[in-house]
Amino acid sequence: MPSSTDTASTAKRGRPGYDQQSVLRIAVDVFNRHGYDATSMGILADNLGISKSAIYHHVPSKGDLLKLALEHALGGLEAILEEPAATSGAADARLEFVLRQTVAVLVDRLPFVTLLLRLRGNTEIERDALERRRTFDHKVAALISAARDEGSLRQDIDPRTVTRLLFGMINSIVEWYKPGGSLSPERLADDVITMAFDGLHSTQH
Amino acid sequence: MPSSTDTASTAKRGRPGYDQQSVLRIAVDVFNRHGYDATSMGILADNLGISKSAIYHHVPSKGDLLKLALEHALGGLEAILEEPAATSGAADARLEFVLRQTVAVLVDRLPFVTLLLRLRGNTEIERDALERRRTFDHKVAALISAARDEGSLRQDIDPRTVTRLLFGMINSIVEWYKPGGSLSPERLADDVITMAFDGLHSTQH
Repeated sequence: MPSSTDTASTAKRGRPGYDQQSVLRIAVDVFNRHGYDATSMGILADNLGISKSAIYHHVPSKGDLLKLALEHALGGLEAILEEPAATSGAADARLEFVLRQTVAVLVDRLPFVTLLLRLRGNTEIERDALERRRTFDHKVAALISAARDEGSLRQDIDPRTVTRLLFGMINSIVEWYKPGGSLSPERLADDVITMAFDGLHSTQH
Repeated sequence: MPSSTDTASTAKRGRPGYDQQSVLRIAVDVFNRHGYDATSMGILADNLGISKSAIYHHVPSKGDLLKLALEHALGGLEAILEEPAATSGAADARLEFVLRQTVAVLVDRLPFVTLLLRLRGNTEIERDALERRRTFDHKVAALISAARDEGSLRQDIDPRTVTRLLFGMINSIVEWYKPGGSLSPERLADDVITMAFDGLHSTQH
């Protein structure tokens, strides 16, 4: 973690008071609003209130901003699968852990994951990111299959359908969740797990 | 239903062999691929293999194509709520009916609903459609609340969160469902209902 002196000196390299992280955060918001393809370095400069050359001081190209942003989203998701709770124990407990953490990363890195989920795959950088996202999805799908084989998940729905519907439910969070509102990230994760595993019917039903 | 003679005479009005419905279907595919804003009448003409003036023979403007397409999506969804099974009986049975039919309309009118779900609201036509979509969503949300008050749905999740997650799950279908594949629309609707109401845990769990 940088000391406040480090942060100040990093900020000083750019103007007015931007460091690479804040340039990146604003760029991601602009990409999400206008679409990556439609965002020029000129539009970015307008939104940052700095010149195009000042942006190049922080990052060599628009593609590099995209790459950094997608790395933040994908790195967060991929790290979940490396956690001990994701790699050992009963498959349904591992699945629950992974889904809960996926919700946490979605909420914590909301604009970054939004960008990832809206990619169209027009450039090499986008296609690489989509490939990494598919790999993540496949690993979660394998966990779902394992939990099903273990007997802890119902057998009467195709695991591929389960995977699609689960991701549909979870990924929708980026479209509607308002950080800082009355629904905390932890509560949201609880609700997702309850709904996905136990369903909406009341237990006395 | 038109006889084959009617269809032939309708087709003859356009060229080469298009009627308004087939122009609309192709236009919707192009809108979904390129985005509505980025699609010009010139791009549409290229995709149809006819001249721009031949398109105007079928429909006065790009906006009219969008309007017709959104009407097809919204009309299908709104009709569900008028069915007797949606308006009388226990709230949880009405909710199940509405969700099942929503899946059926999504699948039956897949490109049209895809277009609706991707709207950005840049024009009056888009904003009107988004308003109608919100009204539909609110009516389903009211059904969820009613089923909860009735005691048939669990009390420990906020009905607003339930509504968001349910629509997230169902709306995702337009992004991954392949019509004509091994998963029938009826089976898909069954799977959505099972997962949403009963959850993924096996009953012996």
